[in-house]
Amino acid sequence: MKTTEPEFKSIVGRFACEVHWGDCDPAGIIFYPTYFRWFDAATWSFFASVGYDVKRMRAESLAMPLVAANCEFRSSPVHGDRCEVLSHVVRWGGKSFVLAHRVMRDDGTLFAEGSETRVWTRRVGGPGGPMKGEQISEDLKMLFRAEA
Amino acid sequence: MKTTEPEFKSIVGRFACEVHWGDCDPAGIIFYPTYFRWFDAATWSFFASVGYDVKRMRAESLAMPLVAANCEFRSSPVHGDRCEVLSHVVRWGGKSFVLAHRVMRDDGTLFAEGSETRVWTRRVGGPGGPMKGEQISEDLKMLFRAEA
Amino acid sequence: MKTTEPEFKSIVGRFACEVHWGDCDPAGIIFYPTYFRWFDAATWSFFASVGYDVKRMRAESLAMPLVAANCEFRSSPVHGDRCEVLSHVVRWGGKSFVLAHRVMRDDGTLFAEGSETRVWTRRVGGPGGPMKGEQISEDLKMLFRAEA
Amino acid sequence: MKTTEPEFKSIVGRFACEVHWGDCDPAGIIFYPTYFRWFDAATWSFFASVGYDVKRMRAESLAMPLVAANCEFRSSPVHGDRCEVLSHVVRWGGKSFVLAHRVMRDDGTLFAEGSETRVWTRRVGGPGGPMKGEQISEDLKMLFRAEA
Repeated sequence: MKTTEPEFKSIVGRFACEVHWGDCDPAGIIFYPTYFRWFDAATWSFFASVGYDVKRMRAESLAMPLVAANCEFRSSPVHGDRCEVLSHVVRWGGKSFVLAHRVMRDDGTLFAEGSETRVWTRRVGGPGGPMKGEQISEDLKMLFRAEA
Repeated sequence: MKTTEPEFKSIVGRFACEVHWGDCDPAGIIFYPTYFRWFDAATWSFFASVGYDVKRMRAESLAMPLVAANCEFRSSPVHGDRCEVLSHVVRWGGKSFVLAHRVMRDDGTLFAEGSETRVWTRRVGGPGGPMKGEQISEDLKMLFRAEA
Repeated sequence: MKTTEPEFKSIVGRFACEVHWGDCDPAGIIFYPTYFRWFDAATWSFFASVGYDVKRMRAESLAMPLVAANCEFRSSPVHGDRCEVLSHVVRWGGKSFVLAHRVMRDDGTLFAEGSETRVWTRRVGGPGGPMKGEQISEDLKMLFRAEA
Repeated sequence: MKTTEPEFKSIVGRFACEVHWGDCDPAGIIFYPTYFRWFDAATWSFFASVGYDVKRMRAESLAMPLVAANCEFRSSPVHGDRCEVLSHVVRWGGKSFVLAHRVMRDDGTLFAEGSETRVWTRRVGGPGGPMKGEQISEDLKMLFRAEA
């Protein structure tokens, strides 16, 4: 995937979350797929923050299916830890993009960092139609550009 | 909800499942919403067993949204327990029906028992259309009737 | 379970939550076990609000395993709906108690209402020891009593 | 992480799973954290198949917390797809190891492939004690070695 804007500097999205009892395993620490649930919710929240909220995504038959995801686990949150997922766009491809996510506790402890590669897609023919990758517009990218 | 067939005797569906590491909480026992995930999967499996598999449900725009669900927890499975959900229809209403579920370990230990009340619905106008409750046919009920 | 205080009036706990993409099913509405995940988190949050936060629960080897849970689904939230779980204690037994939960959207729409029956337990001998039901003290109950 | 046995050839673990209704999102395809839930369950199942079942892991206070996980998504399973996770060890470090997982439908379609990096740990002082990384024995590695 070639990046079209090497010097792109992204704004940062912030998604608050908390480690619930049911997010933890018998070892008493977070069950790791929880991080990916958070990544997904953080991405939707990030897009909502620039104007692409759920209603608009749905109305325009847009979705962001994944091509890849990864995460490195630095330390282990436990039940009750209040966290934040900090997200930013690290790369824009023609139809795909990469988001980096960091999960931190409210005291600054880094729990995990990872990324998601997603495709910008539109359902052709509305609900039930096939999802097709769509060229990402410059307008969309601009919404995520941080002030110089 | 009036039952239309007081003497109805249902066949029994069987759904195999296992308590995974991530299904347990820091107390080392099953996190209770897991049971409801199993109930839901058991119901789909039960309907598939009589001919209403996923492909058919999708092709005919059918769904079974819930009106109510409950569960009583008798004893606590731990990671590694192999279980089975035994399901049967306890009541047919006009457009709704009630399923009873029991979760047992392979040695016969009863872990939980509960029920789900569901509505038989069809999407009007295909994918994306509104879901409407639909009269349950005698043919459908017959598929679940146990031999006398 | 006999109630010890028929005239008990409980304070109300409030737990904010949101319907995420991954909480919904192919019908585009909430997957119902999500409600029970919320009920559980709401209960922990409610206890934290009166002084029994996670740290204290852990330090005192306390837990609240379930005996029963149920929910009635009134209307169907979709992705993006911001909700609140309103919880209160409806009954104190000797070692068990019942919580009622209502899930409402921020515009007042009622999505679901249900209850959980839980046992107040302590691990005997610390971590790894067996969980034993424990008499609920008057002091604990008082923490949840609403002003007359 | 240096590999101690460059020519190591691993046996292959097989874990059966199925895409349930609640594993899918409003796009009608698998919600991606589901894959990681499967990876985790597949790993436990793989270890059980060589003698390290849950009972033994628990009795010996062993666990396998993660350092990293990733997955590439090749095509999208839908509700009802019957799958298998094929797992093998790709690298043994001193205290850590890497598992590769492939998720395939029963007709051979590749849905996803990824890996998990885990640390072999033991709880010092039994339940509740801190988890410490432990040197992986040659005996353990041998259990996963495929016949030449």
